[in-house]
Amino acid sequence: MTSSLADMFDTVIVRLGGEIGIKAPWTRKQYERRLASNIKAVLKHYNITYSTLARKQGRIYIKTHQTGKTAKKVSRVFGVSSLSPALETSSKLDDILDTSLKLAESRFEKEKSFAVRCHRVGKHPYTSKDICTQVGKSLLTSLPELNLRVNLKHPDQTMQVEAREEKAYLFTHTIKGVGGLPLGTQPKLVCLLKGDMHSTVACWMTMKRGCPPILVHIEKGTTKSQKSSYKAKQAARTLMKWNIGFPKKLRVTRFRRSLTKKPKDQPLELTAITCKRLMLRTAQRIAEAENAEGIVTGDVLRKGATQTIHSFRIQDEAVKGFPIYRPLVGLDKAEIAATAKAIGLKETVKKESENTKLRPRLELEEIKGIERKLNTEKLVKEAIKSLRKLELQSSSQLSNYVEA
Amino acid sequence: MTSSLADMFDTVIVRLGGEIGIKAPWTRKQYERRLASNIKAVLKHYNITYSTLARKQGRIYIKTHQTGKTAKKVSRVFGVSSLSPALETSSKLDDILDTSLKLAESRFEKEKSFAVRCHRVGKHPYTSKDICTQVGKSLLTSLPELNLRVNLKHPDQTMQVEAREEKAYLFTHTIKGVGGLPLGTQPKLVCLLKGDMHSTVACWMTMKRGCPPILVHIEKGTTKSQKSSYKAKQAARTLMKWNIGFPKKLRVTRFRRSLTKKPKDQPLELTAITCKRLMLRTAQRIAEAENAEGIVTGDVLRKGATQTIHSFRIQDEAVKGFPIYRPLVGLDKAEIAATAKAIGLKETVKKESENTKLRPRLELEEIKGIERKLNTEKLVKEAIKSLRKLELQSSSQLSNYVEA
Repeated sequence: MTSSLADMFDTVIVRLGGEIGIKAPWTRKQYERRLASNIKAVLKHYNITYSTLARKQGRIYIKTHQTGKTAKKVSRVFGVSSLSPALETSSKLDDILDTSLKLAESRFEKEKSFAVRCHRVGKHPYTSKDICTQVGKSLLTSLPELNLRVNLKHPDQTMQVEAREEKAYLFTHTIKGVGGLPLGTQPKLVCLLKGDMHSTVACWMTMKRGCPPILVHIEKGTTKSQKSSYKAKQAARTLMKWNIGFPKKLRVTRFRRSLTKKPKDQPLELTAITCKRLMLRTAQRIAEAENAEGIVTGDVLRKGATQTIHSFRIQDEAVKGFPIYRPLVGLDKAEIAATAKAIGLKETVKKESENTKLRPRLELEEIKGIERKLNTEKLVKEAIKSLRKLELQSSSQLSNYVEA
Repeated sequence: MTSSLADMFDTVIVRLGGEIGIKAPWTRKQYERRLASNIKAVLKHYNITYSTLARKQGRIYIKTHQTGKTAKKVSRVFGVSSLSPALETSSKLDDILDTSLKLAESRFEKEKSFAVRCHRVGKHPYTSKDICTQVGKSLLTSLPELNLRVNLKHPDQTMQVEAREEKAYLFTHTIKGVGGLPLGTQPKLVCLLKGDMHSTVACWMTMKRGCPPILVHIEKGTTKSQKSSYKAKQAARTLMKWNIGFPKKLRVTRFRRSLTKKPKDQPLELTAITCKRLMLRTAQRIAEAENAEGIVTGDVLRKGATQTIHSFRIQDEAVKGFPIYRPLVGLDKAEIAATAKAIGLKETVKKESENTKLRPRLELEEIKGIERKLNTEKLVKEAIKSLRKLELQSSSQLSNYVEA
């Protein structure tokens, strides 16, 4: 038991998500290519050296001596279902037996039960069962000091052999990947980042399904809202860790006229929805300019001015026919919080303040009246004109950003 | 240890979802009322007798002798976060001590560790800590035959005391509820049921967030599609188990002209999208007639004719401005399958056949050309005219349905 985990292995086997495997060959090839290129970008980003990265029969094999770091970083690439650091050898039975001994010596624990599993693709002079039997026998007889015992149903540890044509790969453990579809296999979407948990999770979920994000934050222009602008930038940086190889930009703008300076008699929920409609219109303009095919929001269903089905309908009307995606609409708060944790968001769930007695019905005509007075078209145009692109620094410099 | 679980308890404590608790008082009251009325409908549906059902401080207390059945059925009511079958007593210390002995005798296992937890609301001559200490001591001294030991951090079993004003409730275990928001606290949505896993899960997710469904199935009119119509009815019946107290209807219609009789040179994906647009238009008409405020589909993001962002955009255009909800858009297939299992769907995930070489871009103008030739307006009108409402039988008669 001399080798450490770091220098033991020479290959990382990357398994593609089940949803990629069931695609038609033509589509699958496209997905696999994109996944391979996204993985290469991650390896480059983290300065991981590797000799080859090969796509073979629905898997990706990375030859590297930094297998631990590779597995960890690549597990966060969308489209990766699982990974195993492995030892590569020839598919000759003798080589497999030798390698399995080497691996067991280093990785197997004493006095524990084990099983051998084998998976074979290609022509070989042996069956999968042959390998299992031979490897099992060899481990028992050649390593008496480990005092192993066989348990095929519930083994404490497993020796896995994958024979693929003239190569074989041996490994003992598997790491879970993030799943989803490779980023870039779907069109871009504009994500409205508010600096809260919801909009960040919503953005991440559509990224996970293959859509590269165009991150947009609309500042409210009040001193109170500076905090949410700061949080939006932090959220954008967290999202960028999942976006390696794609542009690292946050688009920021604001409306020239503060919407909080509303007429005294105007109910709060009307202001909230007018503001939301302005934001959606601005997002649509950005989407059209950037060739993005929809808008993602962190809307959930609850009883709040802008978060009800009725309010969504009034919001959708502002960008008539342009798709708005609300991936959180069927989820509970606890489910959203769990995803936020998995993403790496530090934001905790806060109590909502919903002390406004909301009117059950908001009328579209009333909103339109307010919009005419505000001259929304001009406000949106000005917001687009004053759009700034922030180039997000690497995640290690969380407190700084530069304007591009 | 004489009493069985069934006759041991006299009360079921129902805890509301955390999202209901954080609402403003006015909203919370509305939610709690709706939840209470939905629970009453479930109790009536399953012939459960109860003497009172009281809302108190964010909980619902059901007095019944069928506590096991009540807890099981009520755990499936949206908005319920957890439940405990309990024993009610007065909040006098002596009564609490007596009841805790009775409960421990029947429910505690021998030779195991235990802890006492207490939660107190109102004025009492003791603190929460007092109760914990007194109950703990009493259990140790009065039940020496159980040979219990105290473990406050990781107990094998727990005695829980809730003192609320002049009453106290004692229980030893808690059942998880389904969560979500009470059905009926959001407006109705039209759910397009295709008979597959996706559309059923999507419908259930919006139900879980409070939206009562208007279930619609559009038959394709081919012999091949009879199976999916059968499955749609089955799916509707499964959903109805989550919909007790609300109308149990499935609306069924079909287009008069089969869309599968397409011109030979028309690519398959054009037919698929034209069909989807027709369905959405029909759903919109039904929604408008039924006062529903949007359409729910089981769309996911993948590489398929009707399942891409680009295709969604063309679909949305058909019902310009009318909201379409796609709650599965940010989820992986495995996540959807897990929810399907929780719902009670028997449908398993099947391999998709996606053997058509799809064109990367579909043009809206081309679709509109096909629609003009088809006379879609007439097709939709006819479909609405021939709409039938199926009254769904109770779930025990899965193979029959009658037309209403």
